[in-house]
Amino acid sequence: MSDRQPTPEESLAQLSIELQHEHPTVANYVKVVAVGNLLFLSGHGAFVDGRPTHLGKLGADLSLEEGRAAAADVMLNLLGSLKTELGELTRIQRFVKLLVFVNSTPDFTDQHLVADGATDLLFRLFGERGQTARSAVGVASLPLGFAVEIEAVVLIEDG
Amino acid sequence: MSDRQPTPEESLAQLSIELQHEHPTVANYVKVVAVGNLLFLSGHGAFVDGRPTHLGKLGADLSLEEGRAAAADVMLNLLGSLKTELGELTRIQRFVKLLVFVNSTPDFTDQHLVADGATDLLFRLFGERGQTARSAVGVASLPLGFAVEIEAVVLIEDG
Amino acid sequence: MSDRQPTPEESLAQLSIELQHEHPTVANYVKVVAVGNLLFLSGHGAFVDGRPTHLGKLGADLSLEEGRAAAADVMLNLLGSLKTELGELTRIQRFVKLLVFVNSTPDFTDQHLVADGATDLLFRLFGERGQTARSAVGVASLPLGFAVEIEAVVLIEDG
Repeated sequence: MSDRQPTPEESLAQLSIELQHEHPTVANYVKVVAVGNLLFLSGHGAFVDGRPTHLGKLGADLSLEEGRAAAADVMLNLLGSLKTELGELTRIQRFVKLLVFVNSTPDFTDQHLVADGATDLLFRLFGERGQTARSAVGVASLPLGFAVEIEAVVLIEDG
Repeated sequence: MSDRQPTPEESLAQLSIELQHEHPTVANYVKVVAVGNLLFLSGHGAFVDGRPTHLGKLGADLSLEEGRAAAADVMLNLLGSLKTELGELTRIQRFVKLLVFVNSTPDFTDQHLVADGATDLLFRLFGERGQTARSAVGVASLPLGFAVEIEAVVLIEDG
Repeated sequence: MSDRQPTPEESLAQLSIELQHEHPTVANYVKVVAVGNLLFLSGHGAFVDGRPTHLGKLGADLSLEEGRAAAADVMLNLLGSLKTELGELTRIQRFVKLLVFVNSTPDFTDQHLVADGATDLLFRLFGERGQTARSAVGVASLPLGFAVEIEAVVLIEDG
């Protein structure tokens, strides 16, 4: 028995949650750019097993619970890209900033509760390191009809 | 008599303007994350005395002047969070970047003039240090029905 | 004959493409703020010869091809601001992050293809240094009725 904190990968295994590795981008852009210890991540949507999922608009097609699930699945795609980039998620020192775009009707006003689906998962997996700054806004539409798109800035440890 | 520039706090007092300290976030995120000398601030709305204000959509519910006032009040909330983080606003070396989300009808096209409500206040309080890079866009809807939400990147002085 | 790579300026000349230098901002903000080697650029629209162009909404007023052309012209405005800031575009070490706002109807879902107009141009002019992280989202409306607005983070070389 050990007092060691579980790694994020161990926590994911315990929760039977799988990271998602989105299909390769086809356009001339990349998923992650590193500047020193800061990683800038492209906007990610929710792919599960390579297929886009959670399509539609909050306030019309998806319930709040479905929106929260969408945000969590987008986060698994971001974590998949980070795993590919870093090898080990324990190299993440801090989630700095998320920008959460919620595909919304003009009268939907619970974007912050949708975004909780992403940040609750971060806190569960990373503890204090997962307590990020965050914005949540309602957009008119998103690529492929995604319900949620999230971009991120992440700080990693030296070396 | 002194040639000393007034501090931002003194300028606020002179203008009889009060900083706003939004109620604590309830979700698992924080208002400010520091990476070295850079502060990343979460999207803020306009709370006055702890209550959300300036609700509605530009192009339908609010006039341009009301939108500018909303943007200024959001800035007071951002400054309130910075005051809490830093102790003294004079520690701010430069406002680097604002992203101004304006709750808009599809045909409202004066988001830049709404955003001026925030950046005019910054310039008035901080002079050249308040001359920030900025984006202003029209979104379909915002949390709680806010008219304006703003996130920020701020550079502070060494320790 | 030389194996030297052409500079971005030489590539532009070969393609008979001109940088665009947007009229000066009238509000109290600036187009570029530098923090160390990182440049944060304000949201830019498409001005050609000082006049706003590519106005309207994707999904209603502009075809996908027109949207891609709009994104490319916005990039020429961003490059114009970078040229003014840096003197020589070869000082750019890497495009780090673009955030592409596409003025969209609620059912337009090809924002990523519109954004390709900007990133394809970057790759053509800068090669690997132009392979940036990127987000593309559909917004309800934009200043002046622009079809596309783009903000950017850029890394420059020492010196």
